[in-house]
Amino acid sequence: MGALDEGHCDSELENAIKLGFIQLDVEEEPQIAEIEDAVKILLQELGEDINREGLRKTPLRVAKAFREGTRGYRQKVKDIVQGALFPEHGLHNGVGHAGGAGGLVVVRDLDLFSYCESCLLPFQVKCHVGYVSSGQRVVGLSKLSRVADVFAKRLQDPQRLADEVCSALDHTIKPAGVAVILHCQHLLVLDPSILRWNKTVVSSGSGVFGNEEADIWNDLFTLLQLGGSSMDKPAKKSSDHWCLSLASATNRMPSNLANANPAAANAVVSIIRALGEDPSRKELIGTPTRFLKWITRFKTPSLDMSLNGFVCTQLERIKSNGEEARSVNKIHSELNLPFLSQCEHHLLPFHGVVHVGYFCAEGVTPVGVQLLQSVINFFGFRLQVQERLTRQIAETVAPCLGGDVVVVVEAKHTCMMSRGIEKLGSSTATMAVLGRFLTEAGARSSFLQTIPSADTSNSYR
Amino acid sequence: MGALDEGHCDSELENAIKLGFIQLDVEEEPQIAEIEDAVKILLQELGEDINREGLRKTPLRVAKAFREGTRGYRQKVKDIVQGALFPEHGLHNGVGHAGGAGGLVVVRDLDLFSYCESCLLPFQVKCHVGYVSSGQRVVGLSKLSRVADVFAKRLQDPQRLADEVCSALDHTIKPAGVAVILHCQHLLVLDPSILRWNKTVVSSGSGVFGNEEADIWNDLFTLLQLGGSSMDKPAKKSSDHWCLSLASATNRMPSNLANANPAAANAVVSIIRALGEDPSRKELIGTPTRFLKWITRFKTPSLDMSLNGFVCTQLERIKSNGEEARSVNKIHSELNLPFLSQCEHHLLPFHGVVHVGYFCAEGVTPVGVQLLQSVINFFGFRLQVQERLTRQIAETVAPCLGGDVVVVVEAKHTCMMSRGIEKLGSSTATMAVLGRFLTEAGARSSFLQTIPSADTSNSYR
Repeated sequence: MGALDEGHCDSELENAIKLGFIQLDVEEEPQIAEIEDAVKILLQELGEDINREGLRKTPLRVAKAFREGTRGYRQKVKDIVQGALFPEHGLHNGVGHAGGAGGLVVVRDLDLFSYCESCLLPFQVKCHVGYVSSGQRVVGLSKLSRVADVFAKRLQDPQRLADEVCSALDHTIKPAGVAVILHCQHLLVLDPSILRWNKTVVSSGSGVFGNEEADIWNDLFTLLQLGGSSMDKPAKKSSDHWCLSLASATNRMPSNLANANPAAANAVVSIIRALGEDPSRKELIGTPTRFLKWITRFKTPSLDMSLNGFVCTQLERIKSNGEEARSVNKIHSELNLPFLSQCEHHLLPFHGVVHVGYFCAEGVTPVGVQLLQSVINFFGFRLQVQERLTRQIAETVAPCLGGDVVVVVEAKHTCMMSRGIEKLGSSTATMAVLGRFLTEAGARSSFLQTIPSADTSNSYR
Repeated sequence: MGALDEGHCDSELENAIKLGFIQLDVEEEPQIAEIEDAVKILLQELGEDINREGLRKTPLRVAKAFREGTRGYRQKVKDIVQGALFPEHGLHNGVGHAGGAGGLVVVRDLDLFSYCESCLLPFQVKCHVGYVSSGQRVVGLSKLSRVADVFAKRLQDPQRLADEVCSALDHTIKPAGVAVILHCQHLLVLDPSILRWNKTVVSSGSGVFGNEEADIWNDLFTLLQLGGSSMDKPAKKSSDHWCLSLASATNRMPSNLANANPAAANAVVSIIRALGEDPSRKELIGTPTRFLKWITRFKTPSLDMSLNGFVCTQLERIKSNGEEARSVNKIHSELNLPFLSQCEHHLLPFHGVVHVGYFCAEGVTPVGVQLLQSVINFFGFRLQVQERLTRQIAETVAPCLGGDVVVVVEAKHTCMMSRGIEKLGSSTATMAVLGRFLTEAGARSSFLQTIPSADTSNSYR
């Protein structure tokens, strides 16, 4: 229950949010400045010019996002719940359960985001809370979400998050029992071009939910299923590879990167401290190294990519078929090429797929997908914006694809989902067009029609 | 473009939200007090005791929610966008379009809420924004959402909302063109027991999107479709019955209700004024009457419902079959009975379905669905909390169903989606159990298994 006593509260926060008139200058907070300085060191470590236009405000943006994403350290649960406990009669004594005397109350599918304590990346949480009331009182339904969010907005591990939410609700509502079930998703990069969401389901129960075999758990799972929630039951223990960085070789040699980049490692340590955490807490000791390993994937390459060699080969092929590329009318599509990049405004990943269309003569072998993928990876693994990534891919592949090229990039931005506007379902698409695809709407349209629709909102194809 | 100059801005608002330390006392705002007073008058109009525990803080909660839900009147678009315009090169001049020179940028599926100016109910918006950049600059993707939200957080009509977002983005980003497409949903009550979402699609375009027949619109629609968005194209004009209250008889005689309840009508007028709107604006003149018509559906009935008559009939039937209800082992389920109610904490609707299970002898005609539905309507159409509604239904129907009853209520709460926590996908379930359903987990489980899962997140079955 230490969670309840930690930190300072600010119950006025949400009121002020709603009201919309606040003059406070956030840059004045000392922790913000501390994180800003650390982010500047990290940007330099990535080989970036911290004064270029796109990056000028990034340290401040990242600092605010980190503080906001961990505001749970400065909130107290009691203040959220206390004003929202309402007297509510139950059924006639001894006859049954309902209302304030034992009825099951379930709130399903609360979308939250938390920060992984192992790697500092946000992870997605679908939270379900059930409780059985007692003492003739019920709690305002939205408070279950607000309390869960207090603990989500900290550096977390899924099981600890479930346990903390459960015990906080138990202590403040004092019900007959509380159950918390979390479906968590963590972005994993298995390889430059292989991305997936690692999923885990955890649960925590108190009171009548204290025994995992109790019938009330079955009732709860059935009610969750009715709401359309995934029916994965909690694993007996958290997945070993929940955060892949924990399973990587670097983790076994945690000091390597940190030794190589003491200034960068210290910068991450100072961020953790500025969030209100103890960097020497067991689970956080390896975090600076793991975060550095992640972020240095996006170090700007010192050389530009040149496709001169490929250009010749490809054009030779077309010529050997006795055709001019301009006269070719067959559109070739390479679809759903995966990419991962890092938003230079927020230092958070965005990822998705790239579609490339070009004209290709009959009988000519299309340019290899490996070539396109290597161009995508080259421009993806750096600090980026989606518009620029789209343009760079198009410009780079155009010479070897006959000059008539269309590139579409579809992406999910972690910064759009986990912070600020929190638009979980949103996605973005950008398009660059060259040559005939610019002037011929029909060609553009034919290519676009070849792209299959995304059918799931979470995994990007 | 008046939209850009209206109101005062507060760009610090969102920063302060993120930071989480604000001491401002919102109750001090004069508009809050004004709305609070008006809400008290409305509660009394509904026959409620404004001092009972569940309602004590409702006026303040509603006042804050109204002010928050219309904070757009106090925000300026320029301040949101200006810091987030980034220089970005386009493709080589004259060769094609991309990045900062003509590339299409699309942000899909931004979930927003707005207030219907005709009836003051929130309506749901799925917003898609596309723009073609020019002037070698792009705008931070999240800003498209923030700007859309400035106009959503006002009293709106779908078409005006689309137009205002479009022209605000056009003026601040100065791109080659902007397109805004909104999929809007408005809760309609056709009858006490028939609820549906009225849907409309509207669009607005500027620059290269100025002509509805332009090829670029097709590209945009294809990209939206790829993201899985609904492919309903905008209607030529807004639906006449977008807000059903506009089509009702009351609208043709707008002064009736207002004349009957001048104090209540004045209270709504003062709310509209406190939000920063002009109650004499053409579209708002009938709003107080329409809002009163909506809210008075939830007037507490002066009589309690008695099922004594039904009890006898039903028990007689069971007895005439020579069986005792207690010895009967067949569970009868009445599923997906619709309900509509009004959350007494927020004065916003919650709606969904009720499932009732009870033991019924073979050969005995189950109690009519009409009876159950009338009980549900009786307790639904008043200021409620879901836990109490569940209990009241169970207690009322139990005597005529043999005493062994389980009631499950599944609901979507507008207050969970449109304000405060904004958990759009969330839903709630509450359960009341009586008699054998309390002691026999197997019976409870058998009943719960008969309930079909919800397959869509928006319409509640």
